[in-house]
Amino acid sequence: MGRVICDLTIWVDGYAAGLNQSEERPFGDDGGGWGDRLHAWYADPDANRAEIERVTAAEAFIMGRNMFGPVRGGWDRQWNGWWGDDPPYHAPVFVLTHHARAPQPMTGGTTFHFVTDGIESAQAQARTAAGAGDVAVVGGAATINQYLAAGLIDELRQHIAPLTLGAGTRLFDGVPPLDLQQVSARATTAVTHVSYRVQSWAPSPERSTATFTKESSCSMRKRHRTAGDGACSTSPCPS
Amino acid sequence: MGRVICDLTIWVDGYAAGLNQSEERPFGDDGGGWGDRLHAWYADPDANRAEIERVTAAEAFIMGRNMFGPVRGGWDRQWNGWWGDDPPYHAPVFVLTHHARAPQPMTGGTTFHFVTDGIESAQAQARTAAGAGDVAVVGGAATINQYLAAGLIDELRQHIAPLTLGAGTRLFDGVPPLDLQQVSARATTAVTHVSYRVQSWAPSPERSTATFTKESSCSMRKRHRTAGDGACSTSPCPS
Repeated sequence: MGRVICDLTIWVDGYAAGLNQSEERPFGDDGGGWGDRLHAWYADPDANRAEIERVTAAEAFIMGRNMFGPVRGGWDRQWNGWWGDDPPYHAPVFVLTHHARAPQPMTGGTTFHFVTDGIESAQAQARTAAGAGDVAVVGGAATINQYLAAGLIDELRQHIAPLTLGAGTRLFDGVPPLDLQQVSARATTAVTHVSYRVQSWAPSPERSTATFTKESSCSMRKRHRTAGDGACSTSPCPS
Repeated sequence: MGRVICDLTIWVDGYAAGLNQSEERPFGDDGGGWGDRLHAWYADPDANRAEIERVTAAEAFIMGRNMFGPVRGGWDRQWNGWWGDDPPYHAPVFVLTHHARAPQPMTGGTTFHFVTDGIESAQAQARTAAGAGDVAVVGGAATINQYLAAGLIDELRQHIAPLTLGAGTRLFDGVPPLDLQQVSARATTAVTHVSYRVQSWAPSPERSTATFTKESSCSMRKRHRTAGDGACSTSPCPS
């Protein structure tokens, strides 16, 4: 069976977006244009070819509604993502939302599916769609944090832009301690790529487990070796 | 003139130590032994020779009192650091403290000097001691954050251990946005080494500057190209 991987571009201090994100400023308060520099590595495909190809190699994708777009609440306004008529995914993309919407096919093979019953449902649907291929959770950081906290990520690929931001949405916020295995590290012109396999999802016995709810069944999580009491977390679905 | 560099070993989420540090547990709540894994790379000198040699290549060192030891308040108890009779620095080490103490010479050329008048005084004394050599700010994270916030660091070397902790003392907390230049990235057996030159120390015009106090003179900081209004920060000295 394929893996569940995630790719996230972050600043050196772990932020993936600034405060006050909007349609005009998708990365929010980004220090005055530093949002553009965050993803500048995509504009240098020769230097970053292997990593760019890996990002879109998955057979199905999952993203949070905040990454999909700035529209909130019911889908009163037609919004089909930031990527024009032909998004780069060319595969099913499962968008987490609280508001039902019919699937939205796009040019080039991308279809946006809207999932209203939580991150595990989205993963199950993406797994079915991907077959033996990989599923990629592509962001934003809040969505990736939910999947990490639930022990559902096999491999984490950070793309670290050489800036710090100081405020915003941050990778690992609310995620219990993780035991990782280094896969690779490589600096190119505008970014450092660092990949890890998630070895265990391990709320430590000496840390408070007040935020974790024991569940009778968490078989999907059990494939990660757990330390401590192996309690499972439940996380709210993004709006 | 030599540079001011800093070396800090961190977990992947930026923490350098857990909560509740004590003499018995120098890294505090560390997930149950993960503090040992944080610095495991020092125990593999063949794999990490270049980085280990760089850590101690400076001609003078600066550290916070919390890194020097767990003793607080007046120096009622003789404490000469965690490193035995022959600390690895073999050069003057300037320890930030609010409590005066006579210099403490050790075997092998290390002498601990205790500085009570702030981070800039410590840097000036270390610069004099280092001559044309480098000055290294070696930690902990709270001390490095003060130097970064004051625009006094030329090069930042992260040594990233493949774990996340989730709580503790974190690199970059309270530091305004930094524009960095990648120097190198390398993964060895137990750590990923990533180095940056600090290009500018740039409190952004669109971010609140309420925490920054304009000063009439900050010539030491001016050697960094500043964006925004170039305001200088003042940070309290650690106890």
